[in-house]
Amino acid sequence: MPGPIQSIERAAAVLRLLASGARQMGVAELARALELPKPTVHGILRTLQLVGFVEQSPDTGKYQLGAALFHIGSSYLDGNELRTRALNWSDSLASRSMESVRIGTLHENQVLVVHHVFRPDNSRQVLEVGALLPAHASALGKVLLADDPVGLGLADDEPLKAYTAATITGLDRLGDALEQVRQRGWAAEVEELVEGEVSLAAPIRDRRLVTVGAVGISGPVERLCDEAKQPRTDLVSYVREAARSISRELGAIPW
Amino acid sequence: MPGPIQSIERAAAVLRLLASGARQMGVAELARALELPKPTVHGILRTLQLVGFVEQSPDTGKYQLGAALFHIGSSYLDGNELRTRALNWSDSLASRSMESVRIGTLHENQVLVVHHVFRPDNSRQVLEVGALLPAHASALGKVLLADDPVGLGLADDEPLKAYTAATITGLDRLGDALEQVRQRGWAAEVEELVEGEVSLAAPIRDRRLVTVGAVGISGPVERLCDEAKQPRTDLVSYVREAARSISRELGAIPW
Repeated sequence: MPGPIQSIERAAAVLRLLASGARQMGVAELARALELPKPTVHGILRTLQLVGFVEQSPDTGKYQLGAALFHIGSSYLDGNELRTRALNWSDSLASRSMESVRIGTLHENQVLVVHHVFRPDNSRQVLEVGALLPAHASALGKVLLADDPVGLGLADDEPLKAYTAATITGLDRLGDALEQVRQRGWAAEVEELVEGEVSLAAPIRDRRLVTVGAVGISGPVERLCDEAKQPRTDLVSYVREAARSISRELGAIPW
Repeated sequence: MPGPIQSIERAAAVLRLLASGARQMGVAELARALELPKPTVHGILRTLQLVGFVEQSPDTGKYQLGAALFHIGSSYLDGNELRTRALNWSDSLASRSMESVRIGTLHENQVLVVHHVFRPDNSRQVLEVGALLPAHASALGKVLLADDPVGLGLADDEPLKAYTAATITGLDRLGDALEQVRQRGWAAEVEELVEGEVSLAAPIRDRRLVTVGAVGISGPVERLCDEAKQPRTDLVSYVREAARSISRELGAIPW
């Protein structure tokens, strides 16, 4: 069987670079990052421009992601069964909890947000669909990691990134936290990603009983926790009920 | 100068096919559509799978778009200056008009929605960011076509698709409508795409005074039109004010 096609792999690497960090990059900069000759990178960029996957800025001559890639990428959501089945239940979870709802799956050791329902209070909120959250510092991520121990993809001695003083950065402590998530069937993250913010999540399973996603709410610590800074049990039950309903739609619960 | 790289063009064609219509396609089906030998298509798919741009369904063995492509595509919005500059003004337009707001740009003869603010009434709405609207049957599209006469990209004798009885399908009538848009500085679409729905839009211009996008509202004909089925002038003025404010942010109005 022949190996992967080199020019497609390189084109994908160019798109990944343009999606991360600087947003606009020149040929020389891309060539350095990819350790490829400039004419090679230039040929890839010209082809990607031809198909609309990258655009060249008329001002700077630098390259950025193109509209065609955005439109094609958006189509992923239409084919995403988890998201399709979860739409109703996540709306209902937002109404019951009066908090914003997110559904995520594990993607390259992070949580990819595939659905986001705004908190139903008309406040200004930023859509996070397509965003990546750190798995060890989010309730969605803890749920996904609990059932996928290799999901973190870290070497034993690599430290986890600290976002606040409460972020779990030791692998031993994370292991204990994930064991608790497995036992309780839900996860909490209390000011571990952003000061003052809390998230709660529960697993979504398919008919093979494999965890294929997580659904959860997030909001201010004053609303999501009680006075002992423990997650409010009524909100936990709403989240778990939504997760069970979506799992049932996916065939996990056959009655 | 060497020509475009064939395997990258073919990979892009595969992704386009997977983004349109069926969502899941088998190797044989893709090979037929692309008029390529099956082993060639299989090699492209395996490489696209390796980089996360496509996924193979464990149930059907067919291919669909992958999560990595979705995440990379979403990053396009972060680099989109039009959208970034327009966020505040579109929120404010939604509050003033109490209708949903969309911002679009012309992409392959259609309107690509790059931003969407829900109608501020807590009703259930579907996010349309990344969707494509027909240019001749939407107010956003008419605004964009009015300033880009080749934008429609149609042969003279090709009919425009009818969505309702009110859709403009003749190129002569569309030409007249676009001339009116240029003279008035705004566009309306009254039940031309969906029965009972109306949209209004105005152009966003950059510092070269080139129309780079359009902003508009859409909603039921009972709210957006008066009793003579003419667009309400107060709503038209809100839309035009928002368009001018965004144009000013982009440098079109230097004071």
